[in-house]
Amino acid sequence: MRIGVFDSGVGGLTVLSALQAAMPNHSFLYLGDTARVPYGTRSPDTVIRYATAVAQALIERGAQVLVIACNTATTYALEHLREICDPLNIPVFGVIEPGVQAAISHHTIGAIAILGTTGTVNGGVYQRSIAAKCPDITILAIPCPLFVPLAEEGITDGEIARLVAERYLAPIDDTVRTVILGCTHYPLLRETIAAVLPSVTLIDSAQATAQVVSQALLSSPTETDPSTQFFVTDEPSTFQAIGARFLGKAPKNTTWIDLNTLPKPTSSTPQ
Amino acid sequence: MRIGVFDSGVGGLTVLSALQAAMPNHSFLYLGDTARVPYGTRSPDTVIRYATAVAQALIERGAQVLVIACNTATTYALEHLREICDPLNIPVFGVIEPGVQAAISHHTIGAIAILGTTGTVNGGVYQRSIAAKCPDITILAIPCPLFVPLAEEGITDGEIARLVAERYLAPIDDTVRTVILGCTHYPLLRETIAAVLPSVTLIDSAQATAQVVSQALLSSPTETDPSTQFFVTDEPSTFQAIGARFLGKAPKNTTWIDLNTLPKPTSSTPQ
Repeated sequence: MRIGVFDSGVGGLTVLSALQAAMPNHSFLYLGDTARVPYGTRSPDTVIRYATAVAQALIERGAQVLVIACNTATTYALEHLREICDPLNIPVFGVIEPGVQAAISHHTIGAIAILGTTGTVNGGVYQRSIAAKCPDITILAIPCPLFVPLAEEGITDGEIARLVAERYLAPIDDTVRTVILGCTHYPLLRETIAAVLPSVTLIDSAQATAQVVSQALLSSPTETDPSTQFFVTDEPSTFQAIGARFLGKAPKNTTWIDLNTLPKPTSSTPQ
Repeated sequence: MRIGVFDSGVGGLTVLSALQAAMPNHSFLYLGDTARVPYGTRSPDTVIRYATAVAQALIERGAQVLVIACNTATTYALEHLREICDPLNIPVFGVIEPGVQAAISHHTIGAIAILGTTGTVNGGVYQRSIAAKCPDITILAIPCPLFVPLAEEGITDGEIARLVAERYLAPIDDTVRTVILGCTHYPLLRETIAAVLPSVTLIDSAQATAQVVSQALLSSPTETDPSTQFFVTDEPSTFQAIGARFLGKAPKNTTWIDLNTLPKPTSSTPQ
């Protein structure tokens, strides 16, 4: 199978890395929408427009499965993309439901915290999903916008990272047993977050998503010569340099594609 | 005169604020390209494409003068926009040359430091401009990418801001007499930067640009009922909330416009 994976930029490479480890006999197409990164602070309509264009580009290049490796795009665009892809028999996976399932498999009482971008937290998908499954659990959702530039700058440990983590994580008290890293960048800060919150279970949605996708594709045909191709919407050099920290190795075979002509917004419309 | 001012987002509001103070009898159109912010990490071609679309939108809405209130867009797109606007008799101002002029009016020997985004620093326009005017001066250009999210998050003083400033400003030694705040966000961190560098002259390019533009338009007709309108490419609420910190008051009359269909890239072309 050719599995299309996308994110606004490099963050989704943590998901790709987990997918590759879980499914070494499938091919991957990764698209980072680097000309329009970040999605986390944009409005729902804008995220839907961007994600739709990106998904179409991956399908045009042969993707038979789509993984939205971005929490904000999953929040706002998962349903819309499933509507488009269902008639094409292309399954679409997001990163939120797997993270929620992994989290509630650990604890179903007490409190759970979700760390994410402003878009993910305001979108409320984690909160609604957890509340529907575990109505007695207390949910705390904390936007941590500085974690993304810290991860991209490589400032993932040391005093600055610790102080920023302490600032964001201050509302997390002893009742919280599970914390979901609800942004694909945050696994790079995992050790710093774990040091500030030594007694919680940290859920990495990249790992959880890879498990769900690999289970779902267990009986799908594998490839004898699997490959991975990378596409970006801005020029590739920064993606390749920063991406190495997220993928564990430099993303080779990176091609610049043009997604300027976007579909029109779906609901409320600008002038 | 109707003066069009643009930036990738809220940062240019520091320039607009200075322009309004210097020219209270002119009208302003401000466009924040919030669906594609930030420009600072994007490639030259992408910045040129975005800036061209934004400039065209302002001209269509009646701008008779353009001020590029963004260091990255000035770096990459000023010449291109002048080529487009000269035949229309629309003068185009950037924020770099005024900052350089203000800086070298203070000191023409020793060393000078420029703080900016990765795009501005790599573009090298400050460095080339200063070197052409003061060949004996030593130039230090330092990318400070975390300053933008710190300013937008409102973390402009306190320990985190100080530690980040100390980290970035560590290469600045006693030979440096002048430091240019080469990003429109950085004036919000001015006091923190001044505390780390107590003996340098800090140049705010927003103030310097307002002086240059107001001098150039000294004999232009004024308006009896001057107004300011704001346009954004993503939905307005975040712009209005964060913008208040940059403008000194909430940017009212903000309209969402659609700039999806962009002109094609000018030079090297993606697939």
